[in-house]
Formats: sequence, structure tokens, C-alpha cells
Amino acid sequence: MHTDGGIDGFDCQTCETTLAPEDVETTCPECGDPVTPVFDADALTDVVAAETDNATGIDRFAPALGFDPAAGLVSLGAGGKTVIDAPSLAAELGVDRVRIADEGRNPTGSAVDRELAVAVSVAAERDAEQIILPSTGNAARSAAAYAGRADLESLSYVPSRTPFVEKAMTNVHGGELSVVEGRYRDAAAAYDDADTDGFPVGPASPFRQLGAATLALDLFGQDGSSPDAIVLPVGHGTRLAGFFAGLQALEAGGRVGSVPQLYAAQPAGCAPIVTAYQNGGEVETWETPDSVIGPLEIPDPAVGSRALDALAASGGGAVAVTDDDALAAAVDANAATGVEVSATGGVALAGTSELAERGEIEPDGSVLVVDPLAVAAESDILRSQLMSRGI
Amino acid sequence: MHTDGGIDGFDCQTCETTLAPEDVETTCPECGDPVTPVFDADALTDVVAAETDNATGIDRFAPALGFDPAAGLVSLGAGGKTVIDAPSLAAELGVDRVRIADEGRNPTGSAVDRELAVAVSVAAERDAEQIILPSTGNAARSAAAYAGRADLESLSYVPSRTPFVEKAMTNVHGGELSVVEGRYRDAAAAYDDADTDGFPVGPASPFRQLGAATLALDLFGQDGSSPDAIVLPVGHGTRLAGFFAGLQALEAGGRVGSVPQLYAAQPAGCAPIVTAYQNGGEVETWETPDSVIGPLEIPDPAVGSRALDALAASGGGAVAVTDDDALAAAVDANAATGVEVSATGGVALAGTSELAERGEIEPDGSVLVVDPLAVAAESDILRSQLMSRGI
Repeated sequence: MHTDGGIDGFDCQTCETTLAPEDVETTCPECGDPVTPVFDADALTDVVAAETDNATGIDRFAPALGFDPAAGLVSLGAGGKTVIDAPSLAAELGVDRVRIADEGRNPTGSAVDRELAVAVSVAAERDAEQIILPSTGNAARSAAAYAGRADLESLSYVPSRTPFVEKAMTNVHGGELSVVEGRYRDAAAAYDDADTDGFPVGPASPFRQLGAATLALDLFGQDGSSPDAIVLPVGHGTRLAGFFAGLQALEAGGRVGSVPQLYAAQPAGCAPIVTAYQNGGEVETWETPDSVIGPLEIPDPAVGSRALDALAASGGGAVAVTDDDALAAAVDANAATGVEVSATGGVALAGTSELAERGEIEPDGSVLVVDPLAVAAESDILRSQLMSRGI
Repeated sequence: MHTDGGIDGFDCQTCETTLAPEDVETTCPECGDPVTPVFDADALTDVVAAETDNATGIDRFAPALGFDPAAGLVSLGAGGKTVIDAPSLAAELGVDRVRIADEGRNPTGSAVDRELAVAVSVAAERDAEQIILPSTGNAARSAAAYAGRADLESLSYVPSRTPFVEKAMTNVHGGELSVVEGRYRDAAAAYDDADTDGFPVGPASPFRQLGAATLALDLFGQDGSSPDAIVLPVGHGTRLAGFFAGLQALEAGGRVGSVPQLYAAQPAGCAPIVTAYQNGGEVETWETPDSVIGPLEIPDPAVGSRALDALAASGGGAVAVTDDDALAAAVDANAATGVEVSATGGVALAGTSELAERGEIEPDGSVLVVDPLAVAAESDILRSQLMSRGI
């Protein structure tokens, strides 16, 4: 990874400094706060505007991410633009146009494939033998897949509540799994206590943000037209922070007119970022996390402060919704649009409805809803929602 | 659907006639045998060679499939070219190059999305209110999704052994499900006995073959370079027959030099097409189907005769593998390549190994293996394979 053609480095806001890539492994080595990628907007613009030959998806962005184009990324073909119009939802949600970014169509079924592709590429470049991370499940599976591809070991700490398919596929990819009794915070604590010298690729990794930025490049790099608002389900804030960094660079390079308003949606049972946004304060640990939507039950977000910055800087906002509203929104969207919207994606859909009702998103606005997850791991809780309707 | 710009009609080999699209609903109305799409190779060539604007995946082939480009297909964004190189498998399988077409990355997790997109588009065009089909599970889920998108009803007959995720998602998409105790043949029998006037979109539908043909267009329409051999897991033969029709048209239009050798792989516990190929006879009903790989446990293939034609005409062949070899091949591929190879895809991988050992595929040959299914529905049987290794 170098700064010749795409990234300037990683920004620590607390220390007011930009770190060279080689000086970064995870958080700021000085203060321990999360750092965020800073793109060279002109170089990035050249890359996203270029005609592509064989490279597709995120692979074509390798130079903009600081990788040698010849060597490229450790690749499973992540990324691309999988956006589906959902006209049948617009009236119901109270806006003019709704589109869904179906990120579950990534190689291991989630948007984190973008992130792990980049983080594992850095690990491989630095001759790591093992990558390590805490995860609610989908990142563990993705890490195991990319580690397998790069001939590295992976060790993931997941809570016992992680869906079977995520645990099973982590093992099937040859990944090692430490299943910790309890919830995500228990798995994260076990990870923190672990004595290992593996290369960290957890949610605090700035390389994961760099990977998340490719969603912005895929969505808006070529056609430039952007919606009025984008609603993302948010756990750690990694995706939101990286996505915003990508959007800022596209704006600076003139590829998009302005950064759309970014909204974070969280389950009401664990909404530390939404609460901090509403109170105008810092992100504080959520004491009693309680949501059936496991990927979003994150009481202590790794990149919360940078996620808050993205919401404020884009003129967006934050919204919390009940599990029940999220599940109902997901089930209704599956039936009305055919798109396989996960429960996690349902949080963003229900959030959109709430934001439109509040008037934060205008009735004539166009909205892009990001669903980061394939539905398979959550098909049980969606089916249960039907049961509650007597079906 | 019309014959202005892409298809000439549907060929019944028994009656030696080409039927107009409007005269076809499922099998030949005269003799009841399966019919196969016949492309206008020149028109199809124009479509696949055209620069694309906004349409991606199979949507850009709509005119070549006989649909008005303005109206297009009922779309969830199926298709595209998701081929991953698997260099770490080549030596193990005994060939020079292996690539995997990861068709599980379609909207509802299987290659049948290509097929249902087309079949449901025809149903909608003909003002059907309901589509009906028997299915091992993944087509039921896909049918429900596309029916939801087109505002139609769907009714699927599936066996009780169908994986939970397929049943759950069929319901979540608003599809009606008749769960028949037993195996696929029991579900198919219940479907045959049902008194319904829904539009049939089961495996005998020639419109499903038309959709399957788009895999050939996506893989070889643009770049033209094709492997020496392509190995597909085969159940009903719908995908193989449609894929071959697409390849023939690409060859006739000069887009590929010659049709690659096509190989069918089936589980040894239910291999009616392989057995017919080896015996040089007709496809006969498999009396005691027995495979853990549900999507391929098809004792009475709907399009068996046309699948046999494709194998013979392409100079390919057929191979049966044990469940154990298929599961082991899938698990090994997941670990070595990171690609999420399903158990169904594992049948084709194990088949490739066997074909290379027999010398049917040359050691310096390049092979494309088609994995039609996302791994989620089969993660349990893959995980069980690890258990048998003590992991």
C-alpha cells in the first residue's frame, strides 16, 4: 500500500495529523482514536472515471486504494453496482423514489466483503500469518473466505447468538472460530483479552473503512447522479465513515455535485449513535443492548465519533426504530419488491419511513436505502414476523 | 414476446417443427415432449455485441429473448458475469486452469433467477394471475420473488426436505407454499394432481431454458474466449439445455469459435441423465433416488432428452460422483479459494476431478465449473462434512 496514486493517508482528528499508511495498523498509534482514510481526490477521480477492461467491482479501484494495479487486491469479485428500484415502496414510505442497494449480493453475502478484501490485502502485503477480529458473524465469514484466498489463517471471536450459517461458513472456509457465550460485547471482550499477534481486521480497522468507501465509488463514480438522501443501518459506524470518505473525495473531484444527506438507522434497543446525535454529545456505551437484529446490536461502536461527523457534515441525521417495525418493513419489502431485504436492511427502511414522517426527508425526495446483508442469516426472524401475522 | 429481434421460436424435435412463442405454454402442445428455444443468431449477436447503457445483467438481453426493449423483463437485476479464477484448485483437479461461475450471487441466491425472470415476464405479458411450479426449493423462492415484483400470485409445491431458508423466503416474498411430505417426486406428483389454472413455470418451461441461455450470453457474449470444457451440475436438464441453445447461437453468430465440451455431473444416488448417456439410451426414471444434495435429487428429469442432446452435440460427456466426494470437493474449494461453493457446485467439482482422471478432460485443459447455488441453503451439510473430519 502506497500513497502514489490514490490515498494521502489516514487522518486522526484528535491528533490533527495525517498518518502514512505504513504507520497505521488499526487506531491512531498516538492516541488510540479511530482514523479515517483521506483520498487524493484527483487521483481517485482518474481511477473511477477510467474505462475498465477486465477488472470489475472493487478490483478496478485498487490503484485508488493505494495498491499496485498489477498486484491488485485479494479478490473474490466483491462490489459492483447492485441497485434495484423499488417503486412499490415509495408511496408507503412517503417519498418520491426509493432504491435499494442490495449489498447482500457480495461474495460471502454482505457489504463487509468490500472491507475485508482491502484489510486482508494489507495483511497479506505485510506478511501477516493470521488475521484476527471480533464479529457478530458476517465479518467472521468474510474474513475466513478472504484469508483462505490469501493463504492466511483467520481467528474470529463471535457471540453464541451468531446465526448458524455464519458460524458454519466461517469453519467451512477454514477459519478458526472462538464462540463466546453471550452477546457481541462478550465476544469483543474476549477478543480484547486474547493474547495473539495476528493482524487486526476488526471494525476499528481503517482499511475496512477504505473498503467501505468503494460503495460510494461503485454507486456514484460513473454516473454521478446521486439521491437526496441515503439511509444506512449502522452498528460500529465503519461502513458509514468509509462511505462518507469516499463521497467526500467524489465531491472534491467533481464526480458528484454534493454529498447526499446521510442518515444512520439503528434499532431502538441499541442506538448509541442515534442517541449521541440527538443529544449533541459523544457516543456513550449502551448499557442494556437488546435487539433481535444481531449485526446491529453494537453497544460500543468502534468508529462512532467518525460516524457522527459524517451525519453532521452531510446535513443528514439519525433515527431509531423498534425491532418490530424493522422486521415488518423488511417483510413488506420482500413481498412488494421481490428484493431480498434483510432484517438489518429493514432497520433502514423503517427509518426512512420515520424520517419522511418527521419531514426530515422531503415527500418529493429520492432515497437510497443500503441493505448490507444477504437475507439468509436472518430468514428465521423474518419468517417469525409472518407467524405473528398468523401466516 | 415476439420473434422480431431475437428468437425464432421453440423447437420440438419429436414433431420436427418450430413453434411460435404464442403457441407455447410449456411442453409441445402436440406430443408433450420438451421444446427448446431457437435463437435468431444474427439478431442475438447484434444484441450481445451492443454497447450497454444502463441495462446490466440479463436485462440487456431482453430484445434477444423476444421482449420489447422498452418494456423489458420483470427484473431483480439477475445475471452478469461472476467468474472467479481458482488457481489453487487446478493442480488438485488435474487440469491447467479452473474457473468457477458463482451463480449463487443472483438476486435470490441461484441461477434459476435467470430462468424465473424470463418465465414470469411471459406470465405477466399473458395476463396470468398466478404462476405454479414444483420445486426442490430454490425455484420456489425465486418464483415468489419475481411474482411479488410483477404483482402476481405464486404457488409452489416443494418436498418437506426443502431447506428452511428456501421455504421461509418463499413465504416472506408472499408466495404460497404447498409442502408435500417426502421427496421431490412426491411434490411433483402433488403438482401434477393439482387442479389449478395457474401459468406453469416449472422445469419443463421453455421460457426457463430461454432464461438459462443468458448464462452463455453473459459468459461468452462479450469476450468470446471460452474454456475447453464446462462442467454443470444437472437435475432436470433445464439449465444445460438452455445454456447449450445460447452457446449454439453464439457460435452461429461467430461470437465464440466453437461450443466448448459440456459435461453433466450428477450425484451417484440419482443419476438418470448420466446413466442414459453412458448406456446410449433414453433417460429413464431413477427408481430409488438417494442424495443429500436435494436440488439434484431429480429422478425424472423434465428436459432429460434435450440435455442428452447438448452433451452429445458438444462432444462432452457425463459423470456421477458420490455425495461424500461432492461435499469434500465443496468444502476443500471453500477453504482453498474463498469462493462459496455449494454442495450442488461440489458435484461439478468432484465430477471435474473424475473426468480429468479418466482423461476426458485433458491435463492442459481449461475448465469452467458452474455453481448454480448460494451456499446458505447447504451450509449445514457442508458443516457436517467437517464434522466427519473431526473439526
